[in-house]
Amino acid sequence: MGVTTDQKDTFLFPGAYLRNFSTQVFMHSGVSKADAEQAADVLARSDLRGIDSHGVARLHTYFEMLELGRINAKPKIKIIREKASVAAVDGDNGLGLVVGPKANEIAMDKAEKYGSGWVSVCNTNHFGIAGYYPLKALERDLIGWAMTNSTKLVAPLWGAERMLGTNPIAIAFPGDKEPPIVIDMATSAVAYGKIEIALRKTEPVPKGWIIDKDGHDTTNPQDMIAGGAQLPLGSEREMGGHKGYGLASMVDILCCVLSGANWGPFAPPFALRQEIPARSVGKGIGHFFGALQIDGFIDKDEFKKQIDEWIQVFRNTKPAPGTHGPLIPGDPELLDISRKTGIAFEAK
Amino acid sequence: MGVTTDQKDTFLFPGAYLRNFSTQVFMHSGVSKADAEQAADVLARSDLRGIDSHGVARLHTYFEMLELGRINAKPKIKIIREKASVAAVDGDNGLGLVVGPKANEIAMDKAEKYGSGWVSVCNTNHFGIAGYYPLKALERDLIGWAMTNSTKLVAPLWGAERMLGTNPIAIAFPGDKEPPIVIDMATSAVAYGKIEIALRKTEPVPKGWIIDKDGHDTTNPQDMIAGGAQLPLGSEREMGGHKGYGLASMVDILCCVLSGANWGPFAPPFALRQEIPARSVGKGIGHFFGALQIDGFIDKDEFKKQIDEWIQVFRNTKPAPGTHGPLIPGDPELLDISRKTGIAFEAK
Repeated sequence: MGVTTDQKDTFLFPGAYLRNFSTQVFMHSGVSKADAEQAADVLARSDLRGIDSHGVARLHTYFEMLELGRINAKPKIKIIREKASVAAVDGDNGLGLVVGPKANEIAMDKAEKYGSGWVSVCNTNHFGIAGYYPLKALERDLIGWAMTNSTKLVAPLWGAERMLGTNPIAIAFPGDKEPPIVIDMATSAVAYGKIEIALRKTEPVPKGWIIDKDGHDTTNPQDMIAGGAQLPLGSEREMGGHKGYGLASMVDILCCVLSGANWGPFAPPFALRQEIPARSVGKGIGHFFGALQIDGFIDKDEFKKQIDEWIQVFRNTKPAPGTHGPLIPGDPELLDISRKTGIAFEAK
Repeated sequence: MGVTTDQKDTFLFPGAYLRNFSTQVFMHSGVSKADAEQAADVLARSDLRGIDSHGVARLHTYFEMLELGRINAKPKIKIIREKASVAAVDGDNGLGLVVGPKANEIAMDKAEKYGSGWVSVCNTNHFGIAGYYPLKALERDLIGWAMTNSTKLVAPLWGAERMLGTNPIAIAFPGDKEPPIVIDMATSAVAYGKIEIALRKTEPVPKGWIIDKDGHDTTNPQDMIAGGAQLPLGSEREMGGHKGYGLASMVDILCCVLSGANWGPFAPPFALRQEIPARSVGKGIGHFFGALQIDGFIDKDEFKKQIDEWIQVFRNTKPAPGTHGPLIPGDPELLDISRKTGIAFEAK
């Protein structure tokens, strides 16, 4: 099987092995072979990009949700409203890992036909890394966008309770000889995973990441667990916390209000242990996908060459003291891919 | 004329008076009456929203640029490439206050026909407040977006020099009985105007707003003038500075690389005293406009009612200590409008 282990009780699995394993797990829960392979692909690519928190490590949660009937293994995904370059899709409570790629495909098909395609999705579930979707668009020489809402974790600026998810935005632009520019960011100050790491290490977190249950600044990650909330990108008013809150609101509205999904604090949770909101204002969670055909604006090859130039110019920025200079968005994940020969799991 | 003065040597001009004055100034420089009125409208609405830095206070700069022939008073604005829902526009080096509204109109017309419209613009100039454009879209019951690049002021994360503009993003969503949600934000930690205020008052700025010419953190606003740079939203790596940099890059690429305008550090300056970059990689600066027809996704009235609900739920968020709770994006400008009876100018 080619499974290897290093000195630190970590098992390294070849990507193909885990991809096959995930496929089998999904199929065991009644997911069709094609859908199971699609879902496994989203998870595997997350691991290969070094975003382990969103990869195969989450398989058990998807499995539990499927086994308990909280996610529909055989969804009938359908377009519920449509105009040339836009559509709303009902995911029939299917796996986000299956609904997301189908809705993204509708956006991409529309972009090839009408220059752009925009799809808002309701009645869906966690769709993996947002970056997966614009990366698929790159394969068709399109500029792709993806957003999703998620379970409440983040307080609006000047709020003292969780009202929004970490609501990520992803967008990618193809280069010619250079690798693509891939922006994939939560609209919170940090990813929730970084708070989890601090919890495990029992270390404090920087001021500006979280507040406690009464809305006071805190550096103790335990306060997050005890009813606290994350802060939006920018953290406080003086540093632009209203901007991170604004971006998270934008994602919430495009994904949910525009599709008929549960917005804001009403987003149903992904994990079983999380509380289900008492009120529902729509169906499931929501996603929003977009695709732009470059040729509708400018010659595609000219665009890609300019992106190469852009990358080279920005790489050559005078470095800040103690750094090697700016990275290009997507670089950290790229470095991870080139390093990786398989997907690592710590032995428990 | 109805010009009044208060005790602090401030003159208060009625909006209509200044609108007419601006129109006359533009016409004096050879701008047609229709275009001059359009340009004056963008400036007046900026003042009425309380964003005085982008209103009539900038008229003299537009005037100087026109008088010196740096801006074309009689541009032939044309679509240079097009597909159903997308287009690229060449602004023929016209006033951004004229080119912007025309390109935005193309995006809105496309949205009404195809569900969405997206327009990237090259060979243009400063277009006023980004929020003006989505506010126009609201008049047609559309969701509108606007972005623009601008003269370099902001360093990428880990960079020690100016490479990007403050590159704003604006988007607006219509409510039913509630006022619209209007997000209008620079992708830098703060607007440049706040640094100017600190300079005038000779007060320090918070850490995280700017760096000095060598890339070191500083709280002295003089360091900005002496070759320093602003920091992107998030300011430092730990607080998400790479996200603000990513957003500014997205704006730069959509506005400029996609249209054939000058991206990154090559954006030509708006003010006369600023240095013109030695290298040009395109034509003028760039904008990007988008419009989505709500009815293409969901019933328009249903959407507006949900937006009202969204606003009410977020207004009722438990307040953080020492605050009255979260504002809705657009609230601060709204408060300003309701307070205003005219546009104030300090006597010099």
